[in-house]
Amino acid sequence: MTGETDPRFLRSREAILNAARELLLESGPTAVTHAQVAERAGVGRATVYRHWPQAEPLLVEAMATVPMPFLDKPTAPIKEWLRRELTAIARQLDLDDVRAVSTTLANTALWDRTMDARRAQFARVLTDRLAAALDDAQARGEIALGLTSRNAAAMTIGPMYYRSTIERAPTDPDLIEAAINALGTWATDQ
Amino acid sequence: MTGETDPRFLRSREAILNAARELLLESGPTAVTHAQVAERAGVGRATVYRHWPQAEPLLVEAMATVPMPFLDKPTAPIKEWLRRELTAIARQLDLDDVRAVSTTLANTALWDRTMDARRAQFARVLTDRLAAALDDAQARGEIALGLTSRNAAAMTIGPMYYRSTIERAPTDPDLIEAAINALGTWATDQ
Repeated sequence: MTGETDPRFLRSREAILNAARELLLESGPTAVTHAQVAERAGVGRATVYRHWPQAEPLLVEAMATVPMPFLDKPTAPIKEWLRRELTAIARQLDLDDVRAVSTTLANTALWDRTMDARRAQFARVLTDRLAAALDDAQARGEIALGLTSRNAAAMTIGPMYYRSTIERAPTDPDLIEAAINALGTWATDQ
Repeated sequence: MTGETDPRFLRSREAILNAARELLLESGPTAVTHAQVAERAGVGRATVYRHWPQAEPLLVEAMATVPMPFLDKPTAPIKEWLRRELTAIARQLDLDDVRAVSTTLANTALWDRTMDARRAQFARVLTDRLAAALDDAQARGEIALGLTSRNAAAMTIGPMYYRSTIERAPTDPDLIEAAINALGTWATDQ
């Protein structure tokens, strides 16, 4: 692509991405159209088409600018790390932009391949990281797992995700504690 | 409204609703436009506008034709009832139409009042029914609850919902069993 390092090209690209994210958060994914994005970004419609000939990839990139829940590198004891990380995820799931992006991802992934690849990658990172941390904790005798470590992400993040997107309420510490305890028998009750 | 009992009016209404549901399942909520619905239903665009001046309420009604997960009247022992009901919900969450409707509801509810009212009602019914069943089970000594009964829906349906919509995989019986056990200490291990 020509002009990729042209400052004007980069500026309009950033303005378009910001406009797309704003429209998504304010009105939902259907609002991310070339016409509305152009108006919001203060650029011509042709400029939006030049950067993103289609609206879907623009939505994908605008969504990628919102930081999604994530699991930091595990540290022992895993139970404490888990409590800290899940509390952080619960707080993130309470943010309007995270709720908008996660539900848009789950929904659009059903019909769009790029979105589905993002969804799969997002799920895989959480599942893998949690499984690795728990397998390690089990090897060190910190927990006797009551389910496969591949089920741990659904068991812990699932309740908070449902609370945030279906019940639309904040997660209380009790729910996090119950999810942690549901993973198996912890050696010490911290 | 005039003509409500006119058979032709009712037939076109049904054709429009069917077309809207088909388009939603095939291509997502953005496909439910007056133009596409008219074409699919084989009626004029004006007819679609006559029934539904706006597309959102048409989407809401089309979604309402898909049976959503539900909890049957509780029967003792509650643990068995719960295992049966959660297994049924897990199977429903594996269906494309249920996945489409539930993720569309969670997403559109963020920006649309009618959708949000449906989401809230759906969540409330599940939470209330589960809470009542568990409070009753606790009163009869079947379980000592480890979390508030209002947290039970998120704790049990949450993992399956995350598995279905974010991990996009079927729920295994282990996950259901772990969720049931996470509710508290069951008196008998059935």
